Amino acid sequence: MPLYDYPADGAVVAPDALREWTVEVVGRLGTPHDISTDVADVLVAADLRGIASHGTARLPIYASLIEGGVLDPVARPTQSAGAAALTLWDAHNGWGPHTGRVLMDDCVDRAQRLGMAAAVTQHANHYGIAGWYAMRAAARGVIGVSMTNSSPLVAPTRGVTPMLGTNPIAVAAPAGRFGTLVLDMATSTITWGRVEVAARRGAELPPGVALDKRGNPTTSPDAVLGGGCLLPLGGPEETAGYKGYGLALIVDLLTGVLASANFGARVIGFSLIDGPSNLGQLFMAIDPHAVDPGSFEARVETLLDDVTHAKTAPGAPGPILIPGQPEAQREAEQRRTGIVLDRAHYESLVSLGEHLGIESPAVGTTRQYGD
Amino acid sequence: MPLYDYPADGAVVAPDALREWTVEVVGRLGTPHDISTDVADVLVAADLRGIASHGTARLPIYASLIEGGVLDPVARPTQSAGAAALTLWDAHNGWGPHTGRVLMDDCVDRAQRLGMAAAVTQHANHYGIAGWYAMRAAARGVIGVSMTNSSPLVAPTRGVTPMLGTNPIAVAAPAGRFGTLVLDMATSTITWGRVEVAARRGAELPPGVALDKRGNPTTSPDAVLGGGCLLPLGGPEETAGYKGYGLALIVDLLTGVLASANFGARVIGFSLIDGPSNLGQLFMAIDPHAVDPGSFEARVETLLDDVTHAKTAPGAPGPILIPGQPEAQREAEQRRTGIVLDRAHYESLVSLGEHLGIESPAVGTTRQYGD
Repeated sequence: MPLYDYPADGAVVAPDALREWTVEVVGRLGTPHDISTDVADVLVAADLRGIASHGTARLPIYASLIEGGVLDPVARPTQSAGAAALTLWDAHNGWGPHTGRVLMDDCVDRAQRLGMAAAVTQHANHYGIAGWYAMRAAARGVIGVSMTNSSPLVAPTRGVTPMLGTNPIAVAAPAGRFGTLVLDMATSTITWGRVEVAARRGAELPPGVALDKRGNPTTSPDAVLGGGCLLPLGGPEETAGYKGYGLALIVDLLTGVLASANFGARVIGFSLIDGPSNLGQLFMAIDPHAVDPGSFEARVETLLDDVTHAKTAPGAPGPILIPGQPEAQREAEQRRTGIVLDRAHYESLVSLGEHLGIESPAVGTTRQYGD
Repeated sequence: MPLYDYPADGAVVAPDALREWTVEVVGRLGTPHDISTDVADVLVAADLRGIASHGTARLPIYASLIEGGVLDPVARPTQSAGAAALTLWDAHNGWGPHTGRVLMDDCVDRAQRLGMAAAVTQHANHYGIAGWYAMRAAARGVIGVSMTNSSPLVAPTRGVTPMLGTNPIAVAAPAGRFGTLVLDMATSTITWGRVEVAARRGAELPPGVALDKRGNPTTSPDAVLGGGCLLPLGGPEETAGYKGYGLALIVDLLTGVLASANFGARVIGFSLIDGPSNLGQLFMAIDPHAVDPGSFEARVETLLDDVTHAKTAPGAPGPILIPGQPEAQREAEQRRTGIVLDRAHYESLVSLGEHLGIESPAVGTTRQYGD
């Protein structure tokens, strides 16, 4: 996912402090300690990696889902069916990051015996950044894959109604001196969060990424937020938007449909307390050691070396990157300097803390950021 | 893949006659009969489905590869490593369609025991349409996945040099009364074949799909053919072309890199007889019955019903389609009326037949097609 720019006027919080504060908040909502740490790990990782829309900014929504009885903070996933290499789990409507961490760990264990293994879950909740689970597998030396369906926001090619989520696909692999190769992408061109940020900043959207409520192409974020929807990756039909639509449909097939969860327009929106989202999710691990005596990472390095040393285009804004590189750079920066939260985000955490009787995370310094 | 339009002046050949003729031609090139039938099945399926660039039009190239000693017509794939759910094969540089058919059948057999299984192969050759192998699995009631790397034609985002193939992804699933859901997509916006067709017809390319030899965006097919390259799905960086680039890289990771085959710019071009392409390919089968008592296809139908009945955009050129529907419609038409080959394609088959001492497939009628 592309990073959000640093906010011009940010509140800087130490990563460890934000993590500990998140553990405490999640615990105060009735969550057992081990589950709280999974939640904090995933949300703070999103903040560290510059994906502010998917991190601790979502805590107030999660709190309202728990207080509305929609998300069960004590639920633990259980396996309900399956064969050796493909299992079905019931997340019992618990915390997404905990279910995801447990299922991916189980996939890696099985892949190390079988070569490859997958798990799908029903009754799941939003799990933050899909890439976290794939990276969890890569950290153990295997290829990780994670997908989820999500709230309907994307119109099928030729359509005007949101019938599919931004349904992300994440794949990660250990990449030697390149660290980790992580593709973590929505199957729409942009995410809803980008539209909201553009609206706040008075910016235009690129052409070909969204429709207004009448189904006409628009570059106005307000027109999209006022009843419009997103286009799939590729944009309109002429530039192969049907491929992004097809990818979104396949993600739904492998998650909501395969796991007997909700799918398509039947998914209940994330921030609604009408009922559980009942998302479907897929986790998969592929162990290269099953087919390779040990040179897999060296070959990944060679591929990435070749690609990143290729000639750049006239006027390119920088060098050729590998998927996940901007996020890794942002994480390295913020581990040194602290995590920069925008003011509205930080203030929402202060309010949530007050509501739960927990002191806010200490703000180190407020700094001016910019390019 | 999008269909090619019917040629204005086509030669019409009965599907069975074209298949039998292909079996004979492939046999005359030194191929055992069972392998010849696999080759004919895959190539004629491409012609039937309107993907003329990937069907029997390639026979003259295959013949030159065999006659140049680059493709071994008698080779059969053998398993060289692996665990229960993930195996490595050596295709020994044999016919792509045979290797693919054998490996996908093996994946389906294993998936029916394990829930899911995959196979990767090294020393593979081009295998025609990726969708054929996925559909082979879907015909047996499971989800099929197939990917291959291919000749370098696509520049990474910010680059100008072709470092990756059009690296297709195919996924197919049984879809009840919708037949088969088949996504079969290059990870570039368009394929090289489209550029060639546009050049022949004097048409422009859509913006954002290709670069000229200096790395500048162009809509001129001649500029692309004269040393330019394709852009990944999504187009330029502003419209998320880095997602298509990421997908192409992941396909290479799961095929060339995982299978210890060639990858990236190291793949030797398909039509060159400098040496074997040594492609990497991945086949995967996922058995929904492992996680579902039997209602999977009904849920696929519900998803596709929902999506195809959604409201269409003002000026949409037709109804909302499902992936694979245009190809299935073309196949149904051509099974009734015969396969329409363009003149240059038909004449290349006549020449090949003369070269091998085989009579050309009978031309039923020559008809005018058009919209």
